[in-house]
Amino acid sequence: MSSFSKNTSLLHVVAAAIMAFLIVWTFWPSSPKPRETGSVSQLVSKPRLKPVDDTWCPNLRQKTFYDDPNLSYSIGRPIKNWDDKRRDWMRLHPSGRGDRVVMVTGSQPSPCRNPIGDHLLLRLFKNKVDYCRINGYDIFYNNALLHRKMDNYWAKIPAVRSAMVAHPEAEWIWWVDSDAVFTDMDFRPPLEDRYKDYNLVVGGSPDSVYDNPSWIGLNAGVFYIRNCQWSMEFLEAWAEMGPQTPNYEKWGQILASRVKDKLYPISDDQTAMIYLLMKEKEKWSDKVFLEHEYCIQGYWAGLVGTLENVTRNYVGLERRARRLRRRRAEKVGRSYSALWEKYLEAAGYRKDAGKRPCVTHFTGCQPCSGDHNPMYTGDSCREGMERALNFADNQVLRSYGFVHPDLLDSASAVPLPFDFAA
Amino acid sequence: MSSFSKNTSLLHVVAAAIMAFLIVWTFWPSSPKPRETGSVSQLVSKPRLKPVDDTWCPNLRQKTFYDDPNLSYSIGRPIKNWDDKRRDWMRLHPSGRGDRVVMVTGSQPSPCRNPIGDHLLLRLFKNKVDYCRINGYDIFYNNALLHRKMDNYWAKIPAVRSAMVAHPEAEWIWWVDSDAVFTDMDFRPPLEDRYKDYNLVVGGSPDSVYDNPSWIGLNAGVFYIRNCQWSMEFLEAWAEMGPQTPNYEKWGQILASRVKDKLYPISDDQTAMIYLLMKEKEKWSDKVFLEHEYCIQGYWAGLVGTLENVTRNYVGLERRARRLRRRRAEKVGRSYSALWEKYLEAAGYRKDAGKRPCVTHFTGCQPCSGDHNPMYTGDSCREGMERALNFADNQVLRSYGFVHPDLLDSASAVPLPFDFAA
Repeated sequence: MSSFSKNTSLLHVVAAAIMAFLIVWTFWPSSPKPRETGSVSQLVSKPRLKPVDDTWCPNLRQKTFYDDPNLSYSIGRPIKNWDDKRRDWMRLHPSGRGDRVVMVTGSQPSPCRNPIGDHLLLRLFKNKVDYCRINGYDIFYNNALLHRKMDNYWAKIPAVRSAMVAHPEAEWIWWVDSDAVFTDMDFRPPLEDRYKDYNLVVGGSPDSVYDNPSWIGLNAGVFYIRNCQWSMEFLEAWAEMGPQTPNYEKWGQILASRVKDKLYPISDDQTAMIYLLMKEKEKWSDKVFLEHEYCIQGYWAGLVGTLENVTRNYVGLERRARRLRRRRAEKVGRSYSALWEKYLEAAGYRKDAGKRPCVTHFTGCQPCSGDHNPMYTGDSCREGMERALNFADNQVLRSYGFVHPDLLDSASAVPLPFDFAA
Repeated sequence: MSSFSKNTSLLHVVAAAIMAFLIVWTFWPSSPKPRETGSVSQLVSKPRLKPVDDTWCPNLRQKTFYDDPNLSYSIGRPIKNWDDKRRDWMRLHPSGRGDRVVMVTGSQPSPCRNPIGDHLLLRLFKNKVDYCRINGYDIFYNNALLHRKMDNYWAKIPAVRSAMVAHPEAEWIWWVDSDAVFTDMDFRPPLEDRYKDYNLVVGGSPDSVYDNPSWIGLNAGVFYIRNCQWSMEFLEAWAEMGPQTPNYEKWGQILASRVKDKLYPISDDQTAMIYLLMKEKEKWSDKVFLEHEYCIQGYWAGLVGTLENVTRNYVGLERRARRLRRRRAEKVGRSYSALWEKYLEAAGYRKDAGKRPCVTHFTGCQPCSGDHNPMYTGDSCREGMERALNFADNQVLRSYGFVHPDLLDSASAVPLPFDFAA
């Protein structure tokens, strides 16, 4: 991606493609006489391209890596030469569709123990689907146990592993825990610039991972992992500390002894990732980006209290610039994101300082089990999540003409008046 | 759309476009030198187009219908000249993206009374998201009350109404009740052929709507409605019998007296639609397709018992044709749908006779409230839904390399062996 974008002749080629298309369109027959069917598409004189989704037209006779009997989708059965396999597949399947990111999320197969848990999971999933629709990403929700013994926080590894094989067209898999809320629908990860030289991006700080490892040195609840051989191997190495291995209990002891402030000798995915990075720093670290400056996810307790104020900041900008408050089709929202970015920058709003949090992560709230961290009450988790979900939903509903006047009341929505901030 | 597809010169134009592209690609610079970043995209020599999602680039200075202060997203505030407005908008926003269908679904804002209800809603939503991802449709889940008084089964009307305005790029809005399960991931509605001359398509029978109206003469839980002025007016007329009007109680009486087998004098969306079509047949019927032959949705009680047998039918075909059981990327699944269609036809499997049901609708099961129809037990609803959801999930999981061996156990998934049906 990066090497293409750096190629200065790209623009010329795109221009040539546009020209070629214009020539073709010139030959298009004059628009058919409108018929009285009430269909707008029949009234539109501009010819439309065939839906792009239909462009995945493989030659079904050609063999791909999928035809190799030894290919596995499972953890514990490593894949070899994945980069070559993906490259060959992509050669056979050129497509204009830009689905380069697949978000993977999920929850346990059974109903939640917490009575409100499944209701929250439904809304947390809706929030991610909204985000992905607006930003053009695919999303896959997994609630099956793809490895019988890898449940709970370990279930993400087999889910990501199989999604990599199912989606050779995707350059990145974006894992997002179910309890994370997208609170800035305009946020897009800088995968092809800031992260272009990395294979794993996770929120954390190098100090607390490599030098003085703490179990909160990174947060394994949200990460981007490149769909490549390196990642296949990383996932296998990471999974070796999981509950499906005979050494699971031993790993619990090791992690507790090597990672400070790890209280219980039970191997969890997050401490295991930290330990792996620390222990095999030379092997992995040059492809790992521990993000602590740019937006990736934030801890809810420090964020939910700021949401009302953030709303005021944005309304303030809308008051000053009519074009920010214009109504528009949901599909063109991203063109407005770029505009917003300029105004936010000019106003001095930044991450953690007046800007919408990109992802508000309800770490420790455990909405499904209800076993929240004793540090805070269940009510504060519940109320915080309610606020964050409605704050996000207001960004979505806006395209549909509505707004929740009260962030603690998800049912009520009122029509957004025209030029509402005037 | 239809007039284009009928135009015999279309193929020539498409061929010319392909030729033009080939010429452009010939001029593409040779592939850049691979860099050691582990990124497959940097190793792929085939040039990639810019992600298509980025093509919604409006000229922000241009005014659209959204800038009209009188535009409303709400029921009760009719829109005029919608076809012209949409056409003008589409002229300003040409895009290659084929998002011509937006699925709209949803549920009540509050948690379900039925303890298992929200868990089922989560899985029912996942099923729709899977279907839409595989088929390239956008999906919007609404759980806010877009009209304070239009709750329950009436909530769909304001949701569809606002989605029409939010998505001028969509030719069709597809409403699907939360309790409907997509049980054939290969199913695609024939919107641009069978339904091309219609604005509203709903499962039903003309006899039981126009001639001898019954409250089950059609099923208002699944319908396609064209994004056009006709539909705007239809929704307004339909909504006039809803709970937000002063005449709501009177309408309950009228419906009960005019529609046979309507037991309670309470106006509901389905009976209201039937009554409107019957009463104003001349005004609406030529644009309404009451579908009773092709797949649109089916009543669960008659379908869930057949799913094991249907699975056997499909496995039987896979045993005979290796190419049907080949593994593949999820993105190319639709190319295989066409292949499947041929084999199913040759084997004589049809709707209601050996083929997968397209949509299995759990009418009367009321998963959220738990107030299921006394005709059947809650357990039969629950078990039927479990079977249908896992039957569907097996079609999804297949691309991820797994299968639920037991349709009543959604947790268990085992790796699908290579060439499994051999």
